[in-house]
Amino acid sequence: MSEVHAARRDRLRDRCSVAGAAAVLVSRPANVRYLTGCAPAGSVLLIGPGPLDALVHRRSPSEEPAEGRQPEDVRAVVLPSPDGDPAVAAAELAAAELAATGPAGACLAVEEHHLTVARHRAIGSIAPGLRLSDLGGAVEQLRLVKDGQEIAALRIAAEIADQALGELLESILVGRTERHLALELERRLVDHGADGPAFPTHVGTGPHSGAARHVPTDRRVEEGDLLTVSLGACYRGYRCEVARTFVIGTSPADWQIELYDLVFAAQRAGREALAPGVACRDVDLATRRVLASTGHGDAAGEATGYGVGLEIGEDPRLSPAAMGKLDACVPVTVEPGVHLPDRGGVRIGDTLVVRPSADGGPELLTITTKELLAL
Amino acid sequence: MSEVHAARRDRLRDRCSVAGAAAVLVSRPANVRYLTGCAPAGSVLLIGPGPLDALVHRRSPSEEPAEGRQPEDVRAVVLPSPDGDPAVAAAELAAAELAATGPAGACLAVEEHHLTVARHRAIGSIAPGLRLSDLGGAVEQLRLVKDGQEIAALRIAAEIADQALGELLESILVGRTERHLALELERRLVDHGADGPAFPTHVGTGPHSGAARHVPTDRRVEEGDLLTVSLGACYRGYRCEVARTFVIGTSPADWQIELYDLVFAAQRAGREALAPGVACRDVDLATRRVLASTGHGDAAGEATGYGVGLEIGEDPRLSPAAMGKLDACVPVTVEPGVHLPDRGGVRIGDTLVVRPSADGGPELLTITTKELLAL
Repeated sequence: MSEVHAARRDRLRDRCSVAGAAAVLVSRPANVRYLTGCAPAGSVLLIGPGPLDALVHRRSPSEEPAEGRQPEDVRAVVLPSPDGDPAVAAAELAAAELAATGPAGACLAVEEHHLTVARHRAIGSIAPGLRLSDLGGAVEQLRLVKDGQEIAALRIAAEIADQALGELLESILVGRTERHLALELERRLVDHGADGPAFPTHVGTGPHSGAARHVPTDRRVEEGDLLTVSLGACYRGYRCEVARTFVIGTSPADWQIELYDLVFAAQRAGREALAPGVACRDVDLATRRVLASTGHGDAAGEATGYGVGLEIGEDPRLSPAAMGKLDACVPVTVEPGVHLPDRGGVRIGDTLVVRPSADGGPELLTITTKELLAL
Repeated sequence: MSEVHAARRDRLRDRCSVAGAAAVLVSRPANVRYLTGCAPAGSVLLIGPGPLDALVHRRSPSEEPAEGRQPEDVRAVVLPSPDGDPAVAAAELAAAELAATGPAGACLAVEEHHLTVARHRAIGSIAPGLRLSDLGGAVEQLRLVKDGQEIAALRIAAEIADQALGELLESILVGRTERHLALELERRLVDHGADGPAFPTHVGTGPHSGAARHVPTDRRVEEGDLLTVSLGACYRGYRCEVARTFVIGTSPADWQIELYDLVFAAQRAGREALAPGVACRDVDLATRRVLASTGHGDAAGEATGYGVGLEIGEDPRLSPAAMGKLDACVPVTVEPGVHLPDRGGVRIGDTLVVRPSADGGPELLTITTKELLAL
């Protein structure tokens, strides 16, 4: 695995040296993890200018929780005081090495979308000879297209989420609260080998069903409710998402069936639109158009899906304002929903990997049935 | 409650107008919550320059999860596009209102320790006529001393954590994994009315016992282990922490008893040092000195305690480098630990409220016994 991370760092190094940066300071945790395989709390990665990249830790690596090992070709630098800022220490290190080897006025690229103004200023004052430039979303760009190992981790994450959800469906649901169901799902995720939930599990019943990012309450599941569950597993850092809506009791009401069929059709349209070269906004439009056909176009919210990987909701976004096109091997969610105030609604979501049609089209990772189950 | 938040905003307004700021943009979530009673994801608070303060939301407040209601004397402003940045929209609003009413070149104070460089730049370019200044930790300062309602919430949070821990102690522990015990504790916190865990629950057994912030693994509890549990409840946004160490089996080894007595004595020294007017570093020193007497002075790590409230680990810090003194009604943790590599260790922590001796001295909120229990 160590070579994988070294290759990623080399790609970033090449990109930055073209842009005139002599060294790069990566501070966003998911980016540090992508480039090293580990992300100890608060640590930052310095790429160049020395021959060995450096991971600057707050405390001794032996005391860090064991989530991924630091590659052997990366120096471990421990802050003299754990009160200090690893980013400042890394900039000081870069300045010292550049003063020894590099041209005067060399440039250190930093993640301005992650560093706070206060930290950026502290970096500037510890190393006044260093020019600071903006790395922007360069690492996020590299993270877009996933390699085989990343997709394998996502497949396992999806399998775990499907298992947890499947077990829940076999249990008695009426009378249990949203909060208990959410906690039980999270326990099952861990039972099946997840590092933990990919994000806080959403469970919404009755009037809460279908709402996006509904925070579970003490409302109990009742006969006749719609029940929406949205969960995901995190496996080796990789996060998936699956959302399903069920009906409680034997005979769904007509409005429930109609709404379900609508959201199902919208979600299918989005899934079927996924292909390399397709504009992200066109996938969103495919989903949204179906909802709009019955006047629910606004219900879809800001986006109908987004990229997943080391983060939930990473690039690309599937939204009306999204720029850019899909590539092969980009995992995304397609998860439209409609929520009717005071009545509830339906949300259906999957994690899929974009594939060319020659490879069979989009690969569905979350395979729990999307039939309207009556539980 | 609404008056409480209005009074807090008035205090901040006064402080800022003295410092020359015509308006204040608060973006750090715990600070927004402190000043309004709610903190919808991504929302920011604009204080002044208009007669009504404004909470800028990403989406309609009716779609927000119901955690605290927005006060009626605060305007709800919804972003036209949920893709936008509420901080930028708030700055635009401030600029428009200042252009209409205020002097030219008026100053907007922002939280430079929270805003990223990229967001700060976006604020600067949307409102070029506005000077940006640094609010610094002004809201964090206001948050230090807690009022009666805040302390009442912390008392309930502590009671919930004690209950969850007490129930765990009555169950069979041998053979269960750290991860399962942590999940079970979190479920029990919610059972007893917590919003959720105050932080990810730490459970460490055998060689993992006593380690700070140990991330639970699949290691199972064994006969003869030390078992360290650190958990907290979040109740109405307020977070407490309690840490205890137990021995599994009937007869602890001598080294386990010695280590326990040492950490217990250190923790007691820290608790007893808590009083209004005492320097934070002296509380740390009281704890650390006991550990140092047996050569474990370094084991205490960066800090032996810190403030709690809307966040775990807020100001003040109890560490060798800490500046400042304690005040009455400041809740803090005292939680030293010693971890011996490959053997394990002991950690004992409580949440207490600093009180003058005339009021009976520090108020212990987490009352689970600190005897060495053999389970």
